[in-house]
Amino acid sequence: MSPEELTELGQQLRADAVRASDAAGSGHPTSSMSAADIAAVLLANHLRYDFERPDHPGNDRLVLSKGHASPLLYALYRAAGAIDEAELLTYRGLGSRLEGHPTPRLPWVDVATGSLGQGLPVAVGMALAGQRLDRLPYRVYVLSGDSEMAEGSVWEAVEHAAYNHLDNLTLVVDVNRLGQRGPTRHEHDLDAYGRRLHAFGWHVVEVDGHDVEALDSAFSEARSTTRQPTAILARTHKGRGVEAAEDREGLHGKPLKDADAAIAELGGVRNARVAVHAPPDGEPPAVPPDTRPEPPRFDVGDKVATRTAYGHALEAVGSALGRVVALDAEVSDSTRTEFFAKAHPDRYFECYIAEQQMVAAAVGMAARGYVPYASTFAAFLTRAHDFIRMAAVSRVGVNLVGSHAGVAIGPDGPSQMGLEDLAMLRAVHGSTVLYPCDANQTVRLVSAMAGLDGIRYLRTTRGDLPVLYGPDEEFPVGGSKVLRRHDHDKATVVAAGTTVHEALKAADVLEREGIPVRVIDLYSVKPVDADALNDAAGQTGCLLTVEDHHPEGGIGDAVAEVFSDGRPAPRMARLAVRNMPTSATPEEQLHEAGIDADAIASAVKLLVERVIA
Amino acid sequence: MSPEELTELGQQLRADAVRASDAAGSGHPTSSMSAADIAAVLLANHLRYDFERPDHPGNDRLVLSKGHASPLLYALYRAAGAIDEAELLTYRGLGSRLEGHPTPRLPWVDVATGSLGQGLPVAVGMALAGQRLDRLPYRVYVLSGDSEMAEGSVWEAVEHAAYNHLDNLTLVVDVNRLGQRGPTRHEHDLDAYGRRLHAFGWHVVEVDGHDVEALDSAFSEARSTTRQPTAILARTHKGRGVEAAEDREGLHGKPLKDADAAIAELGGVRNARVAVHAPPDGEPPAVPPDTRPEPPRFDVGDKVATRTAYGHALEAVGSALGRVVALDAEVSDSTRTEFFAKAHPDRYFECYIAEQQMVAAAVGMAARGYVPYASTFAAFLTRAHDFIRMAAVSRVGVNLVGSHAGVAIGPDGPSQMGLEDLAMLRAVHGSTVLYPCDANQTVRLVSAMAGLDGIRYLRTTRGDLPVLYGPDEEFPVGGSKVLRRHDHDKATVVAAGTTVHEALKAADVLEREGIPVRVIDLYSVKPVDADALNDAAGQTGCLLTVEDHHPEGGIGDAVAEVFSDGRPAPRMARLAVRNMPTSATPEEQLHEAGIDADAIASAVKLLVERVIA
Repeated sequence: MSPEELTELGQQLRADAVRASDAAGSGHPTSSMSAADIAAVLLANHLRYDFERPDHPGNDRLVLSKGHASPLLYALYRAAGAIDEAELLTYRGLGSRLEGHPTPRLPWVDVATGSLGQGLPVAVGMALAGQRLDRLPYRVYVLSGDSEMAEGSVWEAVEHAAYNHLDNLTLVVDVNRLGQRGPTRHEHDLDAYGRRLHAFGWHVVEVDGHDVEALDSAFSEARSTTRQPTAILARTHKGRGVEAAEDREGLHGKPLKDADAAIAELGGVRNARVAVHAPPDGEPPAVPPDTRPEPPRFDVGDKVATRTAYGHALEAVGSALGRVVALDAEVSDSTRTEFFAKAHPDRYFECYIAEQQMVAAAVGMAARGYVPYASTFAAFLTRAHDFIRMAAVSRVGVNLVGSHAGVAIGPDGPSQMGLEDLAMLRAVHGSTVLYPCDANQTVRLVSAMAGLDGIRYLRTTRGDLPVLYGPDEEFPVGGSKVLRRHDHDKATVVAAGTTVHEALKAADVLEREGIPVRVIDLYSVKPVDADALNDAAGQTGCLLTVEDHHPEGGIGDAVAEVFSDGRPAPRMARLAVRNMPTSATPEEQLHEAGIDADAIASAVKLLVERVIA
Repeated sequence: MSPEELTELGQQLRADAVRASDAAGSGHPTSSMSAADIAAVLLANHLRYDFERPDHPGNDRLVLSKGHASPLLYALYRAAGAIDEAELLTYRGLGSRLEGHPTPRLPWVDVATGSLGQGLPVAVGMALAGQRLDRLPYRVYVLSGDSEMAEGSVWEAVEHAAYNHLDNLTLVVDVNRLGQRGPTRHEHDLDAYGRRLHAFGWHVVEVDGHDVEALDSAFSEARSTTRQPTAILARTHKGRGVEAAEDREGLHGKPLKDADAAIAELGGVRNARVAVHAPPDGEPPAVPPDTRPEPPRFDVGDKVATRTAYGHALEAVGSALGRVVALDAEVSDSTRTEFFAKAHPDRYFECYIAEQQMVAAAVGMAARGYVPYASTFAAFLTRAHDFIRMAAVSRVGVNLVGSHAGVAIGPDGPSQMGLEDLAMLRAVHGSTVLYPCDANQTVRLVSAMAGLDGIRYLRTTRGDLPVLYGPDEEFPVGGSKVLRRHDHDKATVVAAGTTVHEALKAADVLEREGIPVRVIDLYSVKPVDADALNDAAGQTGCLLTVEDHHPEGGIGDAVAEVFSDGRPAPRMARLAVRNMPTSATPEEQLHEAGIDADAIASAVKLLVERVIA
């Protein structure tokens, strides 16, 4: 398109953003208007995208990191002919695909945005996929706000992108000077951003973001830059094009007061249709057909850490499924993803100590059709909580594996202990939460995870644990295992992971004392095996949960939820980590926290004798 | 100390680190040895600290961000005479104060470390306190690893420190080239770090980290640098001083194999005692005595958003208590901390969109004796989960306030909705979780928070809600309110926040239909009012919880936990947000999620009729 046409298109996008927000009665037109010329130039002259085939392997990707500028994105879709005017005006309505912030309910949206500072990190994952997995020349464009450059996650991504020479990645920062509540830290000081990005190794272009020719050149420069990602820093005005709104404070996130006048000032409604460049032909390298190699097998009675079993299982899953990739945050010797890294170096991604970037890259790769396993200490997955939350909104499938669960890690102390990971992951929409207690169970669950939807989490432990199950035993997600059962069990102990072994020891002691108890291995914390728990409740009358986790949000809550279905509930009690741990041996830790075999046996007796209350 | 003495002291610190780790059978001696010369020079020639008076207002602060190098810190304490040799060798033992990673169980440790990338952000909070609150010349020193420079939180802090001209802050990066599993991204390329820090506005000094004279000069240079924080980039060798360990991979987090030989190679056990420089005299400005100004009062029946009530209450608490400070992540117009900012600009800290830095700064200020309230959208507090978790380990008192809770926000969609915040905050050790439903209740709770220990969380809502309670009503933490009660209630509805109002509507409908129900306003989600719930269970036989939150980890789990005490439990059911919300009006959202008055009334009927199951 010519400069004149681009300028016209920019005005069309602005007017449509104003119209959509006005129809909705809410939204962010001013944040859309600042970036309209950027979007126009990108759409008309640079983006290669088949809107009828969003799954075309050669399509460029566009991530609207400033997700609140959704009216601009939807105006762009209209200009591309992907949606019509009637749909544009359904913006933010119940049932509309055009949500307040973009989600993959729209086929052209790869990942949900709206939590600022996530677009670039996720785009890094896509660009890595393009470079190393798909090996296709698609480009990844990110349109970001200036406010969100304050997020540390952006700088994790900036570092990661430059280090990996992602020249297929272009970040456009819409430097409109105004955040939500007032001026940004650096306002229109483009050099402030430029210096920082340059220091990290980026190619930087500074432009007037309302000069379509300068933008056009900047995008061309980005495309011809090799071995470096490019940042286009665009100086813009929020509310551009409408005098009452342009570069003014106090108008963030509000429809324009006089939309009709604004649309008139913008030149009225237009209906230009852009013929978007077609994506280049080409297919990603053929993924080898899935195979069923022999998974690792462990002998009953051997002592193996579930993190080690995970490492071997992941290596095997990587051999079986060509789309599996693994990511780690510089602790692969601890999480044991090092086995995968050695076996499948082309599909292993070292993320260094940047958990947000690790999860974001996993999301980006999942959006490109890969099956990521991202691993670090369970405790440090909390660093990426917002990314995990948003991954659920993005409806992608991501495997997360947290090692070093609970006090059982021993002397390293509470900073290293995952004691809230089950709570965090259970509360993620549509998640699966798995917590194996032995090596063979781990192997089965690691394999099963690959085929599930949504966010699936596996919790592993640091120390060696005896192998309880044979290598051919099956562990369906949503199931459980009854490890001890007698005709007249007086109570049921529900455990998972480390505490299964303590529960078994306690059950043996109790049996000798004439108190038979059932022991359930609740390896699937979500979904939870309601049938087995109901049976146990009916047959034994009372349940004791025991977990190496804080009392809130974990196994105790998961079991209690089963009995929140309107029926009479059994008597229940729970053991969990209620103290603030310090340094100690694993055995001492379990004892201090009151979740070892002694504590279980004592609690069962109190429960059976109805003393607890 | 002379260079020779400093060198000797460095060797003593190394030998003691080796000894402590050897005695413990675990720990990170090699990570300690790289930084021993840095620590020696800092302790002997620059730190001003009265180890007998850790509360001396003029003490410099030392934050060991690379917390795994705790043996070095403890060796330093021994050299300063703060602990003796016998205690040094209790390292990592049960009951020892010398934990695997430092915690404030030691009086000279202000904040717990061990989750990498947190030391600098927290130190920024301390340095801000020194600059703007205490107005004392203490300096804040951070000793950081090189691996952790990959954490985005570090760059949030780097930005924040330079922007605020924190010349009282010195970051020393122990660039020992080796992370946990192998080389760091930049290995010994000091310039890589230097370019980045310089671009953000820091003064940078690069030194040989084993050259005590160069280190001495660098610290002096940092002290004489004004208007800029200083980073000392120290090129070091991991395992320095022991040939079998120096600059070698595979030795992270392991005691040295032959400790005796290593100690001999380091020159044997030494007992040098350092006369640490005394802190300068001086007191912080007198905080005005606490007063009891009239808190804001709202009239019953008026419609006020609890976030707005929070804003007014915070302003009043700020007037009443001189040690209250407020922080916000660039959404003060939404969270309403803007009222505080206007009334108390000297105690308001704009953190821009950097939630990790916001919470870290709050932790740092809390460690200096202030009472911080840190606010953003509830959803975006997930960004700071790891900092919240570690704040609990640090045993500091921090108030967190999350606005825009739940689907009730309306059309902005799921990215902006706090739907897992209760789960996250309930699972924090020792936390308090409050969720008011009206303006007067909010005022009382905001005031009560200030006096509690640990992490306290208040959840606020976006939309206006009718004022239910008079301004003189009291709301003890751990309590609840019974809003509807009849002689023969057939069920109890337990709600909080938004859903209280839906529950009341449902109760009125049900009463007209001849089904009297009790309604409990569970404004204190943790601790929860077990007595009231037990009474309700005993008297009405069944409970329905209803919450604007995912089903896991929130109010349903909190209520169920009450009945996990070994006694027979009532029949329970729960309504919560089980769908993935899209855009819609607040009313539509509550309806779609099945948590509005209609859904409550229907669920109560099923529960009363024993149909649910």
